[in-house]
Parts: sequence; C-alpha cells; structure tokens
Amino acid sequence: MSSYNFGIAIHGGAGTIEKTLMSPEREMAYNRALQNAVDVGYKTLEAGLSAIKAVEAAVVDLENCPLFNAGKGAVFNSVGQHEMDACIMDGQTLNVGSIAAVRNVKNSIILANLVREHSDHVLLAGDGALEFAKKFNVEIESDAYFHTDQRYDQWQKIKGSDDFQLDHTGEKKYLGTVGAVALDNKGNLAAATSTGGMTNKKFGRIGDTPLVGLGNYANNSTCAVSCTGSGEYLMRAVTAYDISCLMEYKGLSLQKAAEFSILNRLTSLGGDGGVVSIDQDGNIAMVFNCDGMYRASRNQNHNAVAIYR
Amino acid sequence: MSSYNFGIAIHGGAGTIEKTLMSPEREMAYNRALQNAVDVGYKTLEAGLSAIKAVEAAVVDLENCPLFNAGKGAVFNSVGQHEMDACIMDGQTLNVGSIAAVRNVKNSIILANLVREHSDHVLLAGDGALEFAKKFNVEIESDAYFHTDQRYDQWQKIKGSDDFQLDHTGEKKYLGTVGAVALDNKGNLAAATSTGGMTNKKFGRIGDTPLVGLGNYANNSTCAVSCTGSGEYLMRAVTAYDISCLMEYKGLSLQKAAEFSILNRLTSLGGDGGVVSIDQDGNIAMVFNCDGMYRASRNQNHNAVAIYR
Repeated sequence: MSSYNFGIAIHGGAGTIEKTLMSPEREMAYNRALQNAVDVGYKTLEAGLSAIKAVEAAVVDLENCPLFNAGKGAVFNSVGQHEMDACIMDGQTLNVGSIAAVRNVKNSIILANLVREHSDHVLLAGDGALEFAKKFNVEIESDAYFHTDQRYDQWQKIKGSDDFQLDHTGEKKYLGTVGAVALDNKGNLAAATSTGGMTNKKFGRIGDTPLVGLGNYANNSTCAVSCTGSGEYLMRAVTAYDISCLMEYKGLSLQKAAEFSILNRLTSLGGDGGVVSIDQDGNIAMVFNCDGMYRASRNQNHNAVAIYR
Repeated sequence: MSSYNFGIAIHGGAGTIEKTLMSPEREMAYNRALQNAVDVGYKTLEAGLSAIKAVEAAVVDLENCPLFNAGKGAVFNSVGQHEMDACIMDGQTLNVGSIAAVRNVKNSIILANLVREHSDHVLLAGDGALEFAKKFNVEIESDAYFHTDQRYDQWQKIKGSDDFQLDHTGEKKYLGTVGAVALDNKGNLAAATSTGGMTNKKFGRIGDTPLVGLGNYANNSTCAVSCTGSGEYLMRAVTAYDISCLMEYKGLSLQKAAEFSILNRLTSLGGDGGVVSIDQDGNIAMVFNCDGMYRASRNQNHNAVAIYR
C-alpha cells in the first residue's frame, strides 16, 4: 500500500445553483456525471498512474459531458462560436501547458497536456494553438459537435447585448468551468482546468482558466488548485497561487488557505467562485462563496458528490 | 510637498548584455533612451498625475523607441509578424487590463489601459483585441512601421528553425520587454509591461508579460512589479505575485522579496530575468540574475540609468 493518501477532487462549476429551481431528473444527471468523472480519475490513481494522468482523464470525462461548460457543453461566445481555454500543471516539475481561445478541439485538456510535454512554450492561443493541435493529430470536431440546445438558448437570450453572464432560470450566474486536482501514490500533485468561458463573451476574451497561478496551479511543496467562478476577479486575486503562497509563506493549512483566499480575498473584490484543492497529505479542501458548486471527491476512505452548500 | 516619496523605475529588457560587445555609440543610445523614458514618467508624477498615467507614459515612450522589443522595435515571430502583449495594473483598485497576440497596434500599453478602463474583461487576445482597439480609435500602424533592420536580421538568422531565443553577437539571449512601476504623490502604485515577445516564437505564443501576477502586478498594500526575462520560467514561478506574497505573507522587505523571487526561485527553475519594483514607501528594487538589465529610476532624491550588473 502506498504511503501517500492518494485521492482526487473535481468540480463542474460554481454559481447560483438553487435547489428549488433544479428538477430531480437534472440533479440526478449532474450527480451521476460527477460520480463518473471522479471515478475515472480515482481508478487512474488506484492503478498506480500519475496525478497528471488522473486529472487529465477526469477532465476529459467532464469535457465530454454536455452538462458542463467545457468541451461538448461549451457555451456560445458573442459571435456564436465555442472558444475554449484549458491548463494542466505538474506539481513535481512545475511544468505547465495551457491553451486559450481555441476552437474545434474536442478535448482542450489533452491539447494543453501536449503543450506541457512537447512545446517550449507554456501558453498557445487561437490559430497558433490549433496548428499545434493538428501537428499532434489531436481530435478535431465540427462546430455542430459543440452545439447543445441548452447553451444555444442561453446565448439567444442575451445575444446582441453587452451582457456576458449567464443569467437564466435555474442557474442564474452559473459560472461554468470544470477541473480536477489529484495526489498520486508517489506523492505528486497535479491540477487541470478547462472551460468554454462565458456565454456571449466577446471573442478573444481569455479568463483565469488557462493562466498558471490564476485559475490553475500545482506544486508538490504546497498544493494543487483548480478554480471556478467569475474569471476576471479570480485573475485580479491571483487565486490559485495565492492559496499556495498562504501555505508556503504564512504556514496556513490547505483548508485555511483556501478559505482565506475565497471567503476573504475574492469576496472582498466582489468576485464569486470556488476552488477544489488537495495537498501532499491528501487533505482535500473545497471552498466556494456562492450558492453551489458541482463537486466530488474520492480517496481510499471516502467518496462524495455534492452540489449545494 | 507630498508625503509620499513618489518615484518611478523602468526597464528595457534583461539578458546577456556584455559590455565588451556593445559599441560606445550603441551604449549611449540606450542610456539616452532610458533617461528619456524615466524622465517622461517622472515628470508625469511631478505634475501630480497618477501612477497609472506615469507608467503608461513611460512605456509609450519605450514602445516608440526602436531599440527595445515592444511597439516599434518589436521582434519578428516565426511567420514574420509582430505580435504584441501588454498589461497595466492599478494598485489602488486592483483593476487590470491586458492584451495578447495583437498586431498593428502602435502602442499596446494604451490598448491595455483601455481594456482596464472600458472592458468588463481583463484580457483580450488576437483579433478580438484588435476589434476592441478599433472601437476606441486606437492608433493602428502598418506592418512596415514595425519593421526594423536589426530585428529582421535577427529573425533571418533563426527563421525556419525551432530556435526561438535571441542569440546573436552583442546581445546573446537578450530577453526583450519594457516596463515601468511607479508610486504617485497620493500613495498609489501602478505597473505596466509591454513586449513583442521572442524572435521566431510560434504564432499564438503568449508569455508572462500580459498576465496579471506573472509578468506584471500592482497592489497598494505591497508593491508594483514589472518583469522581464525568459517568460516561460517567469510564468511557472508566478514571479510578480510571488514578490507581493513574500511581502504580505512573510513580511519581507521589497528588496528581500525581489531577491528571493529572482535569485532563488526563478534561478532554481533555470530561468533568466529580472524585475523593477517599487513599494508605497518609495523603495525601489531592481534585481536580475543575468549579465545585464536596461534600467533607470528616478525620484526626488536620485536619478540613475544603468545597463550592466
């Protein structure tokens, strides 16, 4: 048995997710999807594979599910396109790969991981990232693949306006992103985050998700963090690295660090959102300052899925 | 007289800048350009204007000078284009504006400042940023404006290869960026950074410069920082926010924080580079781990320009 308490935590976005506005069928679908993704990641760890492999596998699963705002379920931007961002980081080496404003790639997180492994650059955007994807035969999908009626209807409601937040019955201000953090049986941490951004966002807008230290960070000496929420505020708060610094420089526990960063720092700026995070002892902290966060976590001792506060 | 010791520090890039390989004429041209830019910024502060106005003015001056890798002197990317990144941040409000992979905009920092003031987004990239620029009648220049023989020759030497570092006589591994940090007479801090990236970089590559907390950061409660160097390493080290956290969470002075972040953290990752930084007491720290950094600083008591260690 490993001396490390390996485990994984995932999220599928945070925001105004009210139980009274969620149908039992829809709630069950979310719970099932979250359980499935956390199981995919956990089984990867259980098989002795790396934290990087586990977070990649879990995020691929979430990207392929139309319920979440990433991959297949990505929202429409202001010109009706799906533009995706992703980041993956290895806590052992601090190697990181990111892609931003990329269209038609089925799994952004796979592309980000290829950037991490095979590019001298950290972050590739737009057509440059797409060209890199083609070099590695990354799976490309047509625009039609990314079309879901739910996201299209959300876009139609605010299309042409300057509004770029989701604000619709049942999921007001739902801030969609997916992410995973893991500790493997060798004591290595990793974090992965992926998103379709915000409905009706201006094209070319890049949020916190693909940016190392902002929406995603991993460092074996502190923690692995994946953020979700109002990206512009998470950026200004440098949330992911803030949690790491609170542990490293102030000696806070993971839970206390995540609470300070989300409940004090992000909240005082006016931002909504949350994080899933894990440290080398296998402690998991899932903290958010809004009504709900789609989330799940699993290790050798527990297995839990939750949506509301 | 103001109770704040207002002042400004600027840089024009860091790297292998060897005195033996620099002609006296060229050295004089750099010294003159640095003095000019720091004066432009200092006079803005002296006139009672904000730190944001001062760093913007100084960076515009550096962007308009063909000697530095930003604006007019931007390097060529792998397909012979000039793709520019910039970021500006207000330490009082933590409002930040960034642009990435933008072509043909004369002054990237002006566009970044417009994003900060007029966009709900923090970071706009590529054509989306260019569209935003046109809405605000930002000055656009033809590709010819950005052509300088020196940069073209640099590109020709490595074009078609996978090499993307500058590596030529006199400026081996010169890592070009420009930046400014300032404290104004009301006690507000600001930071601005701008770059043309790396010669022969793959198109779509985004470095640390436009990314809040990575290449540029300002917070009245700690410091203002502008980075220059090997961007991929500055990103992985989250250098700008790291310095702020070392002050806030560990209680280090600005100088000690900048030294730890550059001389320990960045160096241990294998990265080259440096920072200019200022705190609310007007302390200025300029730290780098390579042969030289084009830099200048000025306040009511001193006025200095330097290139070498």
